[in-house]
Amino acid sequence: MTQRTDPYRDRYAARTAGMTGSEIRALFEVLDRPEVISLAGGNTYTDIVAERVVECVAEALSHVGERDDPLQYGKGGGLLPLREHLVDLMATEDVEADPHHIVITDGAQQALHLLAEIFIDPGDIVLTEAPTYVGALDAFASFQADVRGIAMDDDGITPDGLERALVALRDEGRRAKFLYLVPTFQNPSGVTLHPDRREPIVDICRREDLLIVEDNPYAQVRFEGDAVTPMRTIAPDQVIYVGTLSKVFSPGIRIGWVLAPEPVRDRLVLAKEAANLCSSPFTQRVAEAYLSSPHLQADLELVRKTYHDRRDAMLDALHAHFPPAARPRVPGGGLFLWVRLPEPLDTKAMLARALEAGVAYVPGTAFFPVKRDGRRCIRLNFSYPSIEDIEEGMRRLGAVVSDELDLARHLDA
Amino acid sequence: MTQRTDPYRDRYAARTAGMTGSEIRALFEVLDRPEVISLAGGNTYTDIVAERVVECVAEALSHVGERDDPLQYGKGGGLLPLREHLVDLMATEDVEADPHHIVITDGAQQALHLLAEIFIDPGDIVLTEAPTYVGALDAFASFQADVRGIAMDDDGITPDGLERALVALRDEGRRAKFLYLVPTFQNPSGVTLHPDRREPIVDICRREDLLIVEDNPYAQVRFEGDAVTPMRTIAPDQVIYVGTLSKVFSPGIRIGWVLAPEPVRDRLVLAKEAANLCSSPFTQRVAEAYLSSPHLQADLELVRKTYHDRRDAMLDALHAHFPPAARPRVPGGGLFLWVRLPEPLDTKAMLARALEAGVAYVPGTAFFPVKRDGRRCIRLNFSYPSIEDIEEGMRRLGAVVSDELDLARHLDA
Repeated sequence: MTQRTDPYRDRYAARTAGMTGSEIRALFEVLDRPEVISLAGGNTYTDIVAERVVECVAEALSHVGERDDPLQYGKGGGLLPLREHLVDLMATEDVEADPHHIVITDGAQQALHLLAEIFIDPGDIVLTEAPTYVGALDAFASFQADVRGIAMDDDGITPDGLERALVALRDEGRRAKFLYLVPTFQNPSGVTLHPDRREPIVDICRREDLLIVEDNPYAQVRFEGDAVTPMRTIAPDQVIYVGTLSKVFSPGIRIGWVLAPEPVRDRLVLAKEAANLCSSPFTQRVAEAYLSSPHLQADLELVRKTYHDRRDAMLDALHAHFPPAARPRVPGGGLFLWVRLPEPLDTKAMLARALEAGVAYVPGTAFFPVKRDGRRCIRLNFSYPSIEDIEEGMRRLGAVVSDELDLARHLDA
Repeated sequence: MTQRTDPYRDRYAARTAGMTGSEIRALFEVLDRPEVISLAGGNTYTDIVAERVVECVAEALSHVGERDDPLQYGKGGGLLPLREHLVDLMATEDVEADPHHIVITDGAQQALHLLAEIFIDPGDIVLTEAPTYVGALDAFASFQADVRGIAMDDDGITPDGLERALVALRDEGRRAKFLYLVPTFQNPSGVTLHPDRREPIVDICRREDLLIVEDNPYAQVRFEGDAVTPMRTIAPDQVIYVGTLSKVFSPGIRIGWVLAPEPVRDRLVLAKEAANLCSSPFTQRVAEAYLSSPHLQADLELVRKTYHDRRDAMLDALHAHFPPAARPRVPGGGLFLWVRLPEPLDTKAMLARALEAGVAYVPGTAFFPVKRDGRRCIRLNFSYPSIEDIEEGMRRLGAVVSDELDLARHLDA
């Protein structure tokens, strides 16, 4: 950023003050150095998809010249056959949906941005888990939301914690616009909101007439344990559901969606048309072809197995190379391992040393509405790097952590 | 829209009041009837692209597993090799550019939405041509802009007209955030801002320190006359340039861009990341492959020739089937024919009759910031329909116009 010398700085909208960019993406510049092993991103295992995508593209192009031509403009709400396949996909997660209540978006990120656009006036309150998805914080900040985080334990936020947050708001004479949750294998923490807490939380939201935005990218990449009922299934009218094919298929095709009550969905379509007319009809057709593929379930099984193996490799390497006081939260799915490091480490300050040592991670501070929180924590990605890279990356990072701790003890002594 | 019975209506942000949806896209539902010939959309001739795209996709997929993998997340600013090709493309339009001053967007629509997002506070003034691109009106309305139109003649807005608009603003104690122009083969009017007016308009904007947003989708589809120097070339620091591959390649791949001074470009990247992280790395790679193709120039020649032939067919059919008082504005490029119909026709009221008769157009009112303007005019698309469909569509529409005029005279008598 060249803000200090920016001759245009007096012209920007007030909302740009909140557009500071995520710490993760600032890292990407550094990560372009090939010698750095990245445990920082959110990329996925796409080897199997790369094999399939040639057929999917051929299928997509077979629709050229037809009414829903993949090379022409599409409708704002998205391609109906794709929405129908998403209904089938959600059915495997126990979510019931009508294709007419779906709007296709450019990944879940655009879904969150459109939801913020239609709901958030400057200063409006949004409740989130703390930590939470950094892209959601960016989307909400674009519309000048006042984000309040609710602390989590190993089973997510508590009904009591939600009640306390609501009481605090009431004391301020304020109401929240919605509660944003990533209730299953949350990014960054890996935490799943416990099944026993889901109904009580929905009950509180119903009582308070508080909408829930349920962001559910990781339900399909569970490799341990039983499926948990989505919030949407418990309370269809109270919950706006956000999905994505980024973890199921490929982040590069940029396909996500919102399932919302019809009037909200209609608003989202208008906002979507003003934002970018339509998601690519070409990649929508490619996604439709992938979801129709007879290989889909077997491919997803392979993805799950791959993540399971990689998570285990990461845990093994953590135990081998990190000080014993480093505490991982072991997730049964998703893409990330959240690790709490011992006092007095500051993971943001440590990042430069890690990059020097040839390994990247995301410091915990990136994921908190209040940036001083999470200093002790790091988010590690196990979905993208190979097992060899995980082992070598964790070896490098473990050495940095040990060195930093030794240094701190030395300074203390 | 189910607004009246919408139980969520009290929760929306104030900006949703401006999200009313374009009259064009509301038509699309009706246009799904196969018997209706659409002269309404903005789709393009993609027969030749459909032949090429298979190779382009193969080239794109050859990058799977590389650093800028088309199946993974990309950077907010877009793929560097694509930006480099866009620099070459702009050079053919006499625009000098640095790839680091470009941000890739999802078509020009997202470019306009992001520009509005970073510049427009509620109530801020934007100056536009009247009529203007309906998608721009939607994007600006999303951020509660106060849009003021400047009338055009056959050579675009006049320097005097701009001066008068600025004086009127000064009298209100207001300033405009920017002047939005589609200066070449404007959508919807087909008008090109006369070369002799460009420098004087730039001079006024320089004097007033008023940014120009130059939206230039149609420069590559000129089939008559000499190229006109873009505004950006006259004043690189005063002009933010918006481009798209929708008319050059395919609307369905959703690739556009902004060329902006570096600090503005940096802001746009932050806004882009919050909006949808990145444009599809997959379609960006496909676009890169197309722009690298040895066929590109020959393909563009074929597109131009096709549009030339179709425009001529539309003009011939207009003369054959419409009352002589119907006045087209003949464009030397672009996708649209703008026709002024005789008094007392109301083209918005006439639309239902036209659809019944099996032909669709867009009423002129859609393109004006003040919706009561443009009632006499229609926009007709000649880039997408075949010559046969143009002839039959114009025959149907001419009959509707004649009938409506007869009816009006009868009522008058």
